[in-house]
Amino acid sequence: MQITRNDPATGAGPADWFTGAVYVDPVATPSGPSRLSASSVHFTPGARTAWHTHPNGQTIFVTEGVGRCQRRGGPIEVIRPGDRVFFEPGEDHWHGAAPDRFMTHLAMLDVDEAGASATWGEHVSDEEYGKPLG
Amino acid sequence: MQITRNDPATGAGPADWFTGAVYVDPVATPSGPSRLSASSVHFTPGARTAWHTHPNGQTIFVTEGVGRCQRRGGPIEVIRPGDRVFFEPGEDHWHGAAPDRFMTHLAMLDVDEAGASATWGEHVSDEEYGKPLG
Repeated sequence: MQITRNDPATGAGPADWFTGAVYVDPVATPSGPSRLSASSVHFTPGARTAWHTHPNGQTIFVTEGVGRCQRRGGPIEVIRPGDRVFFEPGEDHWHGAAPDRFMTHLAMLDVDEAGASATWGEHVSDEEYGKPLG
Repeated sequence: MQITRNDPATGAGPADWFTGAVYVDPVATPSGPSRLSASSVHFTPGARTAWHTHPNGQTIFVTEGVGRCQRRGGPIEVIRPGDRVFFEPGEDHWHGAAPDRFMTHLAMLDVDEAGASATWGEHVSDEEYGKPLG
């Protein structure tokens, strides 16, 4: 049993993977037979991930604020605390805060056999992000 | 992409697995190549799991309130929002609320190849639960 209270420090979301200021707290890392990787991700207003896919899919669970998510070719959806979103393996998508609201979610997935959690693509442009809601 | 907003309903924690009133919201279920199972578990004051183990270990992430956890043979530990606890595969343990405080945590794990998430043992007695903190 390992209790982690005060470390590691909250990290800044890498600029290659996010637009805007994003803060990431690690929650779980693959260990032994478990491939589970989880983090609590805090998006400041207007911040969002780049387009990306996950080899084994991903679940996000909104814990605070108001957010947005979209799969490639689909409408932009509003997500709120208590909402869960499952992204299929290989499904191109993004998620983030609403333009004028903070949003925090838990992000959970199983890494693949090589230990990879995601494949990252281009940033979500202001034009894409600003489209009307679906 | 599947957004789940209002279902399934919050479930009551089974009396075989918990002492006291516990409310469980499913967050993620194994799907395709992902073995991830996650739920948001709400413990009313004094409520706790029975002793149990997980084949691939488990991570809990406290999101609200004040809780307790203990591995077999170790001290009772206090857990608070932001704390993460990793329980090793096969490690006998319990977790729950403080006697006078509500506690909510996200519980996350990978099920095993047979789809099993846990092996349940006896309840945590009032005497065990009431021991001094470590």
